[in-house]
Amino acid sequence: MTSTINVNLPQQSYEIAIAPASLDQLGQSMANLQLGQKVVLVSNPSIFKHYGERAIASLQSAGFNVASYCLPAGERYKTLNSIQKLYDVALENRLERSSTMVALGGGVIGDMTGFAAATWLRGINVVQVPTTLLAMVDSAIGGKTGVNHPNGKNLIGAFHQPRLVLIDPEVLKTLPMREFRAGMAEVIKYGVIWDEELFTQMEASKHLNQLRYMKPELLNEILTRSCQAKADVVGKDEKEGGLRAILNYGHTIGHAIESLTGYRLVNHGEAVAIGMVAAGQIAVNLGMWQQAETDRQNAIVQKAGLPTKLPAGVDIAAIIDALQLDKKVKAGKVRFVLPTQIGVVTVTDQVPADVIQQVLQGMQ
Amino acid sequence: MTSTINVNLPQQSYEIAIAPASLDQLGQSMANLQLGQKVVLVSNPSIFKHYGERAIASLQSAGFNVASYCLPAGERYKTLNSIQKLYDVALENRLERSSTMVALGGGVIGDMTGFAAATWLRGINVVQVPTTLLAMVDSAIGGKTGVNHPNGKNLIGAFHQPRLVLIDPEVLKTLPMREFRAGMAEVIKYGVIWDEELFTQMEASKHLNQLRYMKPELLNEILTRSCQAKADVVGKDEKEGGLRAILNYGHTIGHAIESLTGYRLVNHGEAVAIGMVAAGQIAVNLGMWQQAETDRQNAIVQKAGLPTKLPAGVDIAAIIDALQLDKKVKAGKVRFVLPTQIGVVTVTDQVPADVIQQVLQGMQ
Repeated sequence: MTSTINVNLPQQSYEIAIAPASLDQLGQSMANLQLGQKVVLVSNPSIFKHYGERAIASLQSAGFNVASYCLPAGERYKTLNSIQKLYDVALENRLERSSTMVALGGGVIGDMTGFAAATWLRGINVVQVPTTLLAMVDSAIGGKTGVNHPNGKNLIGAFHQPRLVLIDPEVLKTLPMREFRAGMAEVIKYGVIWDEELFTQMEASKHLNQLRYMKPELLNEILTRSCQAKADVVGKDEKEGGLRAILNYGHTIGHAIESLTGYRLVNHGEAVAIGMVAAGQIAVNLGMWQQAETDRQNAIVQKAGLPTKLPAGVDIAAIIDALQLDKKVKAGKVRFVLPTQIGVVTVTDQVPADVIQQVLQGMQ
Repeated sequence: MTSTINVNLPQQSYEIAIAPASLDQLGQSMANLQLGQKVVLVSNPSIFKHYGERAIASLQSAGFNVASYCLPAGERYKTLNSIQKLYDVALENRLERSSTMVALGGGVIGDMTGFAAATWLRGINVVQVPTTLLAMVDSAIGGKTGVNHPNGKNLIGAFHQPRLVLIDPEVLKTLPMREFRAGMAEVIKYGVIWDEELFTQMEASKHLNQLRYMKPELLNEILTRSCQAKADVVGKDEKEGGLRAILNYGHTIGHAIESLTGYRLVNHGEAVAIGMVAAGQIAVNLGMWQQAETDRQNAIVQKAGLPTKLPAGVDIAAIIDALQLDKKVKAGKVRFVLPTQIGVVTVTDQVPADVIQQVLQGMQ
C-alpha cells in the first residue's frame, strides 16, 4: 500500500510519500530532488535509537554527507534555546543554502527543525520524516514551524514548507499507545471538518485506540485521507488567510488547556480531543449543530481512548482568559471553528463568553 | 522633492515613500494601508530621543494604539537575546496577526525588528522608517531580516517584506558623519553595479563626505536612484536565487573583515568600501576590468571619506578562511561579484585564492 499525495503551492510544491519501509528510501528520495550534499539529521534520543542508523545509512548510500544531532524529547524543550543548539550544529557543519535539515521524529522535532531551517541563512531545505501519527497526519505537512514562548504555545515561528514528507507507517510500531491515541485526535478532526467518509470508516471500526488491533487497510485509509485533507486545505490557503483556519477545530480551547497545564499533564492530541468535545457542544448550544451529531463525534473520541472531560484542577475562568492569547484572536475577538454537519465546519468570532463557560462547566 | 518607488513582488508589493518631513505622515501612511490598530515602535535610545515623540504623535493621531521599546544601539546587540526582548514586548502588548512593528532606526534596528515581526505569530506586519543613509538606501528595502550568530554576521534570519518604507531625508541631519559616509559606500555600490548615471553624478560632485556640503538635489538623486536600483533588483529576484547576488558587491570580503574585527573597529559601510576596492582589483587582476575604471571607483570611495586599505592588524589568511563562512558559499566555493564596466557586474566562483591573497597584500 503506497500512496503519493501532492501538496500544490504557488512557490514550491512537494510530495507526501506514504509507504511501508520507506525509511530505507530516504536518501534516494532526497537525491531525486537534487538537494545539496550536506545534511544534518535532527532527532531525539529514543527515536534515534530506533531509526537513526537506518536513516543515516540510507542517506550515506545516496551520497549525502550526514551529521546528526539529538535534542531532548518533550514539548518543554521546544524553546529558542534548543534552536540555538541547532544553529551551532549548522555552523559547525558549515551548512550552505543548498543544504538540508532532516527532521526524524514527532511534532516537536519537526517544528523545531523546520524553524531552524527556516531561519538559518534565511532559509535552507527541510525534509520531514515524521515518526508519530500526529506528525504524519498533521504537523509535518503544511510548513508551520516554531517554538513556544514561556507564556504561549507556538508564538514564535515561521512558514517554511518542506521539500518532502516521507511517511513510513512501520515506524508507528514503536510509538507509545498514548501518543498513538493523541494522533487519532487529529484524524478524527479531519473526519469532522472535511471528510465524512473517513468519519464513517472510523465509526464502523471496532478498534481505534491501539495500533495492533487496527487493520492495515484502515491505517492506510487514515494516513492517506488525513494527509489528503491537510494537503487540500494547505494548497488552498498556505498562510492561514482564510480556509486554513478550519484546521484549528478543537485547537482554540485545546491550546489554552495545554498552556495552563504547562504542556505536561495533557498532550496535544488529548487537549485537541477535549477542545473538539467543547467546540461541538458550543455549536449545539448555539443552534448550529445537532446533539445527535456531536454525540457521534464524542463516541469516536472515546473509542480512540481520548478524554472528553476537562483535566481535574483546571480553572474555567483561566481557560477563558487564556483564549485571548490565541494567535487567531482578531481585534480582541476569539475565533472558533464550529461544525454544522459531519465533514463541514464554519468559522465564527461570535461566541458569547457565557456559552463557553456553560459548556466547560458541563465538562468538569 | 517627493519620490515614490514601487517594489513589485509576486506576493506583496509595497511603496518606498521619500519626502522631507514625512515622519509626521507615518500614521496617515499606515492608516491608508489599513493595518491593525496595535503598533509597537522599536528604536534605540538616541534615535528615539530625536524622533520617537514625533513618530508616536503621528501614529496616535491616525488612531493607532502605540507602545514603544528601545534596544541598545550597536551591531553587537544584534543578537537572539534582543529578539527575545521584542517577543516579550509583543506578548505584553498582545500583538495580533494584523498588528505592526515599526522600525525607527538604522540597519540594526531594522533587521531585528523585521526578524521579530517575521517570526512572531509566524509573521506580523513591519514598517521600516530608516534613519541612517545606509538603512534608507539598502537594508530597509527588500525584506532581508536577521541577527548575528557569535561566529558570523546575519547567519540567522528570514525574508520578510515590509508593508511600507518611509524615508524622511531630514532625519539625516542628526546622523553622525562617520555613519553618513558608511551609507555612501552602498550608494557607490549602486553606481558601480547598476546605475552609471548615479556614478557619474557622484564623480562630478565636489563633496560626498559630509551631508552639510551636499546639494539637496544630489541627495535626492542619491536616495531616489539608490532605492530604485534596490527595488529593481529585489523585484526581479526576491529571495536571492540569482540577480540579487549582485547587491553583495564588496560584501564578500567586507563581511569577513567585519566579523574578524568583532563588528566594532570597522563599520559595515567601511567594510564594504574596503571590499569594493578589493573586488575591483581582483576583477582587474583577472583581466575582467580596466585599471583606469577601478581607479575611478576608488577615487569616489576616497572622496566619500571611506577607507581603501585593510584595517591594521587583520590577518590576510584569516580573511580567506572566514570567506568560507559566507552565506553565498556553494559547494565550498566562494562567490564574488566583480565589475566588468561601470554599471555592470558579473558573478563568479572562479577566483583563485592566490589572486585574493595578492590583492589583499596590496591593500595592507
